[in-house]
Amino acid sequence: MSEVGASTPATAPPVGPEGDPPEIEGSVLAAPRSQLDEDDRLTPEFVSSVLDAVEDGDSERARDLVAPLHPADVADLLELTPSDRRAALAAALGDMVSAEVLSELNDYVRDDLIDALEPEQVAELAATLDTDDAVAIIEDMEDADQQAVLDAMGPEDRAAIESALAYPEESAGRLMQRDLVAVPQHMTVGQVIDYLRDSDNLTTDFWEIFVVDESHHPIGTCQLSWILTCPRGVSIGDVMKREQTLIPVDMDQEEVALRFQKYALISAAVVDASGRLVGMITVDDILHIVQQEAGEDILRLSGAGDGDINQPILLTVRTRLSWLVVNLGTAIFAASVVGLFQETIAKYVVLAVLMPIVSGMGGNAGTQTMAVAVRALATNQLTSSNTRRNIVRELRIALANGLVLGVLIGVATGLIYGNPDLGIVIALAMLINNLTAGLGGILVPVALEKAGVDPAVSSAVFVTTLTDVMGFFSFLGLATVWGL
Amino acid sequence: MSEVGASTPATAPPVGPEGDPPEIEGSVLAAPRSQLDEDDRLTPEFVSSVLDAVEDGDSERARDLVAPLHPADVADLLELTPSDRRAALAAALGDMVSAEVLSELNDYVRDDLIDALEPEQVAELAATLDTDDAVAIIEDMEDADQQAVLDAMGPEDRAAIESALAYPEESAGRLMQRDLVAVPQHMTVGQVIDYLRDSDNLTTDFWEIFVVDESHHPIGTCQLSWILTCPRGVSIGDVMKREQTLIPVDMDQEEVALRFQKYALISAAVVDASGRLVGMITVDDILHIVQQEAGEDILRLSGAGDGDINQPILLTVRTRLSWLVVNLGTAIFAASVVGLFQETIAKYVVLAVLMPIVSGMGGNAGTQTMAVAVRALATNQLTSSNTRRNIVRELRIALANGLVLGVLIGVATGLIYGNPDLGIVIALAMLINNLTAGLGGILVPVALEKAGVDPAVSSAVFVTTLTDVMGFFSFLGLATVWGL
Repeated sequence: MSEVGASTPATAPPVGPEGDPPEIEGSVLAAPRSQLDEDDRLTPEFVSSVLDAVEDGDSERARDLVAPLHPADVADLLELTPSDRRAALAAALGDMVSAEVLSELNDYVRDDLIDALEPEQVAELAATLDTDDAVAIIEDMEDADQQAVLDAMGPEDRAAIESALAYPEESAGRLMQRDLVAVPQHMTVGQVIDYLRDSDNLTTDFWEIFVVDESHHPIGTCQLSWILTCPRGVSIGDVMKREQTLIPVDMDQEEVALRFQKYALISAAVVDASGRLVGMITVDDILHIVQQEAGEDILRLSGAGDGDINQPILLTVRTRLSWLVVNLGTAIFAASVVGLFQETIAKYVVLAVLMPIVSGMGGNAGTQTMAVAVRALATNQLTSSNTRRNIVRELRIALANGLVLGVLIGVATGLIYGNPDLGIVIALAMLINNLTAGLGGILVPVALEKAGVDPAVSSAVFVTTLTDVMGFFSFLGLATVWGL
Repeated sequence: MSEVGASTPATAPPVGPEGDPPEIEGSVLAAPRSQLDEDDRLTPEFVSSVLDAVEDGDSERARDLVAPLHPADVADLLELTPSDRRAALAAALGDMVSAEVLSELNDYVRDDLIDALEPEQVAELAATLDTDDAVAIIEDMEDADQQAVLDAMGPEDRAAIESALAYPEESAGRLMQRDLVAVPQHMTVGQVIDYLRDSDNLTTDFWEIFVVDESHHPIGTCQLSWILTCPRGVSIGDVMKREQTLIPVDMDQEEVALRFQKYALISAAVVDASGRLVGMITVDDILHIVQQEAGEDILRLSGAGDGDINQPILLTVRTRLSWLVVNLGTAIFAASVVGLFQETIAKYVVLAVLMPIVSGMGGNAGTQTMAVAVRALATNQLTSSNTRRNIVRELRIALANGLVLGVLIGVATGLIYGNPDLGIVIALAMLINNLTAGLGGILVPVALEKAGVDPAVSSAVFVTTLTDVMGFFSFLGLATVWGL
């Protein structure tokens, strides 16, 4: 059977034959080119054509347009629709807003839509989903609505959801699905295959099966590819891998994601405190968590909360404002340092012109170090094993940067204002503030992490305050001492 | 067969029975508790115990300590080891520094180690890996060394690597593995299973098989779980899913990652320009790219380059310094704006004390908006379909923040300095600068993206310059006009 190649010819050309090649850029067959741009984003033309159809009350046309879309794209369509027109669109699409679509939807947008639905409808939708997706839909609802939905569910679904909701938010227990395949190790490959063929209730995709002992403790994991490549007679206990990565049911989702990434997992068994197999987490649920957790740092460092553009605007204002008010306090504090040197400034106003350069550059250098430290901490690269080494590293970098920047600004200032002393003062201040920035940029996040605080959330305010204060103090202080 | 549950009892308790539960927190059986902390990080005690053994020339003990570790943890160990002691550790561990370990290793650390190896050794290691991992190891080498390694390889491996290297860096062609299972659609489930059992050259893990036509164009994808749950007689063409997401071989890895995430893919077929199946990308190779790409933004925004703590220090200094020098230029420019108002400041030094508050707060607000915009662009949430809407959104947020902050600082200043006019001036300046920050915070990244520039790399310098200049200009300008 020649076409049955286990690998393609290694000589396959990087580019195809001459002549214009077929369009394959966006070839999700479910969503042809016309609706998606080369980055899988719905084109504005497509979005407005759908919304126009809804506008015209032509649900028929709207549904025809949306029909070929992948659920993930339907979700995007709803997110890209202005909030005041979403209800109309959802109404027009009707059952096209499937459970899959809801589970793909941004939390805020989903809550909007779900509020418009009857509990029975939500229950119906949720019942068609894996536990993890159903929980994702239900967990954000008001307790009353949540209860209503649960009451409307079948007993088994309800029990599954309720026990999932019993686990803390963002924990493995919320992420896991309870449908999985667990077999005893005495079964043979053949028996497992027969069992799989016979069982009709395998609702969910699975990539590995778990081998358990009598008390349902996982003792091994078995990739489906191993089962498929083994003779029927082999016992599953001989095929399975005993070294497995187990996920404690109460583990935080960020830790789960790091574990999946570190050990390149496709799926993993979730065990309760007694080590019993209670669920399974698959990598497709992890991918967006990795995205989100890694992207969060930048938003937290900037004090933009979760930075969700679908968040209700009042909530966004409150989040950002609270951060800005804290910064206003620190800015006033830094300004008060300038206040100490008003006489010096009055005598030589140029100092007021130059001081923002020293403080600002310190802020920039501090932000660099802080960003590196925050990421290294988040990815477990910066641990107590190499902290001291990296502090020294940052200090050496700060020294180099400080010397170069100090000389640059010092010479420039000395020449422009024809005042060498001024040049020396600003050069020294620049050096001092760079060292402060380098030290603070790594010590602050590390200290916060040690204190159990998320370094991404609160490092920036400390570091920038530090560099502002030290920038003003070193520059104006030196100027005063120098008698400029 | 009762233990063969397709799902665990829905009533499984969130926590186990009474009595102290077995320790399962870090239970990667390959790496027991003693070596890893609860976050899967090697404990400093373990790291130093290994390094001490190496120090004492007791390779035996070092190897015994490292033996139980997962390759990913061996890689971490090498990364956590000071660079000047890595060679000794690697020498002591010998073949424990396997190909898997190398492929898990940080690029810079790996290059260090590989430089110490003979081409033959590298070739030997690479030959044991999937194409994608082998390429990852070889692509960073000097051309001469690279050639030496390729020459030392078997013809088939060499051909595979060479054609992979022919694709652009960070493209699907570099990421993909060429070993995959492709079958014609006329085969039955039974034939496929028999084929898989017979073929002994399935080097790599696989989760889906691809169905191809005579000219090796993919026409469908088939999850292994579907094969396992179907009777032998069914033709694979009836089991496969025709709607598949194909990855063009020249697609950028960031796009590939977004596509995997959006459509929750486990593996995907890679096709060349003529639509022929040339390889397969699996999600485990995508996970760390998602991590990396999402984490990069924060580092780029801060001008810290790739922010790798293993980067040679001189390279780090050069990267960060070049960014700081650019910022020095903009800081001088902003200062020159202050210079325009020296007379005003000379008359009323308090202005010099207060001006950093206005500029600094603008910077904070601008950074918030910018961070949100950069992330929304990176995750395809902010598209031309909703850009205008989000600009308006940011302006409304900026207006609200500006009013609140303006009133706060205005009243405080008016009272503290007993000068209502000063309070009004700073309040107005604060409002103006917040609006500037909100507008610039979203327009700059959007404009850069439209211009094909990575918004994360260059947004910050534009936005902060904007808020500094506008902060000084609005505050000092108003003060002058107001005749303070």
